[in-house]
Amino acid sequence: MLKPNDLILLYHNENAKYLITLPEDGEFQTHKGIIKLSEILQKDYGDEISTHKGEKFFILKPTIADIEMKVKRTTTIVYPKDAGVMLLKTHIFPGAKVVEVGTGSGALTILLANFVRPNGIVYSYEIREDFLGNAKENVKRVGLENNVIFHQRDVVKEGFLQEDNSIDSVYIDLPEPWEVIKEAHRILKGGHSLVSLSPNVEQIQKTFRTLELIGFARIKVYEILEREILVRYSGTRPKEFSITHTAYILFANKINKKR
Amino acid sequence: MLKPNDLILLYHNENAKYLITLPEDGEFQTHKGIIKLSEILQKDYGDEISTHKGEKFFILKPTIADIEMKVKRTTTIVYPKDAGVMLLKTHIFPGAKVVEVGTGSGALTILLANFVRPNGIVYSYEIREDFLGNAKENVKRVGLENNVIFHQRDVVKEGFLQEDNSIDSVYIDLPEPWEVIKEAHRILKGGHSLVSLSPNVEQIQKTFRTLELIGFARIKVYEILEREILVRYSGTRPKEFSITHTAYILFANKINKKR
Amino acid sequence: MLKPNDLILLYHNENAKYLITLPEDGEFQTHKGIIKLSEILQKDYGDEISTHKGEKFFILKPTIADIEMKVKRTTTIVYPKDAGVMLLKTHIFPGAKVVEVGTGSGALTILLANFVRPNGIVYSYEIREDFLGNAKENVKRVGLENNVIFHQRDVVKEGFLQEDNSIDSVYIDLPEPWEVIKEAHRILKGGHSLVSLSPNVEQIQKTFRTLELIGFARIKVYEILEREILVRYSGTRPKEFSITHTAYILFANKINKKR
Amino acid sequence: MLKPNDLILLYHNENAKYLITLPEDGEFQTHKGIIKLSEILQKDYGDEISTHKGEKFFILKPTIADIEMKVKRTTTIVYPKDAGVMLLKTHIFPGAKVVEVGTGSGALTILLANFVRPNGIVYSYEIREDFLGNAKENVKRVGLENNVIFHQRDVVKEGFLQEDNSIDSVYIDLPEPWEVIKEAHRILKGGHSLVSLSPNVEQIQKTFRTLELIGFARIKVYEILEREILVRYSGTRPKEFSITHTAYILFANKINKKR
Repeated sequence: MLKPNDLILLYHNENAKYLITLPEDGEFQTHKGIIKLSEILQKDYGDEISTHKGEKFFILKPTIADIEMKVKRTTTIVYPKDAGVMLLKTHIFPGAKVVEVGTGSGALTILLANFVRPNGIVYSYEIREDFLGNAKENVKRVGLENNVIFHQRDVVKEGFLQEDNSIDSVYIDLPEPWEVIKEAHRILKGGHSLVSLSPNVEQIQKTFRTLELIGFARIKVYEILEREILVRYSGTRPKEFSITHTAYILFANKINKKR
Repeated sequence: MLKPNDLILLYHNENAKYLITLPEDGEFQTHKGIIKLSEILQKDYGDEISTHKGEKFFILKPTIADIEMKVKRTTTIVYPKDAGVMLLKTHIFPGAKVVEVGTGSGALTILLANFVRPNGIVYSYEIREDFLGNAKENVKRVGLENNVIFHQRDVVKEGFLQEDNSIDSVYIDLPEPWEVIKEAHRILKGGHSLVSLSPNVEQIQKTFRTLELIGFARIKVYEILEREILVRYSGTRPKEFSITHTAYILFANKINKKR
Repeated sequence: MLKPNDLILLYHNENAKYLITLPEDGEFQTHKGIIKLSEILQKDYGDEISTHKGEKFFILKPTIADIEMKVKRTTTIVYPKDAGVMLLKTHIFPGAKVVEVGTGSGALTILLANFVRPNGIVYSYEIREDFLGNAKENVKRVGLENNVIFHQRDVVKEGFLQEDNSIDSVYIDLPEPWEVIKEAHRILKGGHSLVSLSPNVEQIQKTFRTLELIGFARIKVYEILEREILVRYSGTRPKEFSITHTAYILFANKINKKR
Repeated sequence: MLKPNDLILLYHNENAKYLITLPEDGEFQTHKGIIKLSEILQKDYGDEISTHKGEKFFILKPTIADIEMKVKRTTTIVYPKDAGVMLLKTHIFPGAKVVEVGTGSGALTILLANFVRPNGIVYSYEIREDFLGNAKENVKRVGLENNVIFHQRDVVKEGFLQEDNSIDSVYIDLPEPWEVIKEAHRILKGGHSLVSLSPNVEQIQKTFRTLELIGFARIKVYEILEREILVRYSGTRPKEFSITHTAYILFANKINKKR
């Protein structure tokens, strides 16, 4: 049986789905009608529930992708198609110490925190106080606050904190990633990984050149495209209109000497 | 300083890279010449080392993607571009109990084991003894054997073991995935996730229909495409010849009653 | 200097462009304001003109892609990305005799007519009178009516007209393309080409099997994807949201005996 | 019945296909065995013929895409997926006067010549004598020499010939396309089209900026991707390994004044 504070995904379809931390009582307003929380608390994951209008919702266990896509957004966020490859091609595991800059809405922070649990730490840097406030709430809402240390700091000007070193992986989501490469090199363990996400080719080019100069090897750039395939009784085909670009993803490994 | 049993990636370029568990002594033969292991043991991650022919290699910390792509293969394996999305859109986290069928070369097993550490378990089913033997070696080689329980078993005919239930996610990589859907439904927790990987449209269609009948919701199919972008002094452009299809990925969530 | 009956493309941007056959006088209403036709007739292709609100438009020579995309639509139409390959991988040239079924909005008809000029013919079949009426108007509006012969006819039931044979290429855009394959084989010259356009995999599969049975070789299926690259001062990147599927394109060549 | 000088495509599969202008007699050597030409001359388009080893070939009518892909290559050539869109989004039709620079292997020349027939002209410029010699042979071999005028000339230094003006469309395939934009503007009709093909982003960016400065509007860049779908009894799926990048295609229209 579900209980207060459980995190659920109320799912009607992809356009009507809600991530909820269950309160004690009250009502939940959907686009398809009202659901009583007292009724939800009689249910379990996998059950069905109806709004007062008779529209049906499934009570699903949210995946980490659901959780990250449902953060309150103050910025664009990284998509699962991109984040998945980022996690596998960097050094992240239970116990890892990783650095993220900038925090943005905290969507990637949540993914990173999820995979360094139970005893790893995400050091997350953000220059803007308002973004950081929102990100902290997003992380706390899904119960991952014990695995994140937030810093409000201008990394371009002030660098990373001295104590944040021997880092397994650095994740960069900044408009000018090249500005923090030297610092990323300083705090990373030898042979370990950096990843940077940018929408434009020019950003990738400049970051690439800077990485070569500062001392990184195996610098590789990828773009990940996701196509949804619609399987219907009327026929099977790819979706007709979709997201076609989010970002280029650049990976590199720290080398101890300049190339 | 590196020490015996450390796992390293000797990296010259993407076509000349070697995953090695460091032995005490001896030599390592690459396509670019011989490297003395006694010399490697004087080095650290991020250092450079030369073969007897003067060809340079970097000593990198392998990522989990490197580790899984370097398994000894008896079957085709899941690619990081696909596995990344699979991890984020299912229920996997430190402590998770997940089921995989079939094991194949153990590549996905390694990824799953990595992310359920330290106290989660991957129950991995495979019908073929020879595949299972190879997979066990692949998993052991990278030190993840404590988080995997292997079963040699024909799941299509015999089902999953009774004790493997209350499962967070089921991962299916079989030619006839629809044959194990009913069993997957039995062992999964309500509202939790199943994912199935198939190269052909027909497999996806049949699995889709079976999932609907057996009791799954939010059945979604994706294809993930990866493009490498070459950043060179001569110019920036996508790679000219690449992998263009691996598999369709189908996700679904268990619902407690039939739809 | 432009003159009445000239075909122009009034172009502000991709979202505000108008295909006009110049009348003698009057006004033209755009989303950006009114343009006086007497003013246009003082201009030439390549000149600029302003609306009464001061918004600028270029007077461009429409390409055949512009012309076909601007037909009055009663149906979905073939896109230039698809049509381009269709023209090159079939047998079409000045003087060719080709067959199209069904006509739809006449968009492909226009492309075909353009490339069989001056002395070739497109035999275009359509079952629905209303579609045919609209298509005829679309073709006439752009001055290609002398190269098209329209037939209102149910090809599935009645076949092609006896006199339409020795055909260079057959273009099929029907929901059930397999129903006209036998007839297409009858009217095609030996070794010549058929092409069929379908949004769904199932349609392609069934058409493929029918072609094999009836007597076609070199049966090949393609999907064409178009990405727009935005080159801006803020950066260069692919467009973020676009059309991701229109249709699969199937090509085949008639062989004189069954395989 | 086939006759000497007919152009045929001997087709076994995509890896064994031969474009032949039929001679009077002799033998034709394929990878699958020898075919006697005297035997072919007994056949017709669409017929089957066997090598002395019993391997079967179909005698197909080559499409213009077959013809262009089978030129003797001294350079990389434009692919049908790209050429198709180029033809539809420029101004080409029976009777058109178009300019191409550089000729390369003459593959695009053949496509252009095919679609300006019977009374249009392709003015094709190439700096290298050896390329031009080969291109001329390629064009002549397929009988299109009456619709092409070749010039050996360094367009970057010397510009286009004075008499080649009032051009409907200019096709540029040069490593430094921006060097000929000013000249292209001079010879084009107002409001008419230019298209340029480049593998690298930097080339596109520089050409884009130059076009804006010189006086072009509606500057658009596209990339065309082609996926082959394999329809087999074992299943339907995209091809697993393919060409993933050829070139970016840039389109623009001449405006009479600077922007």
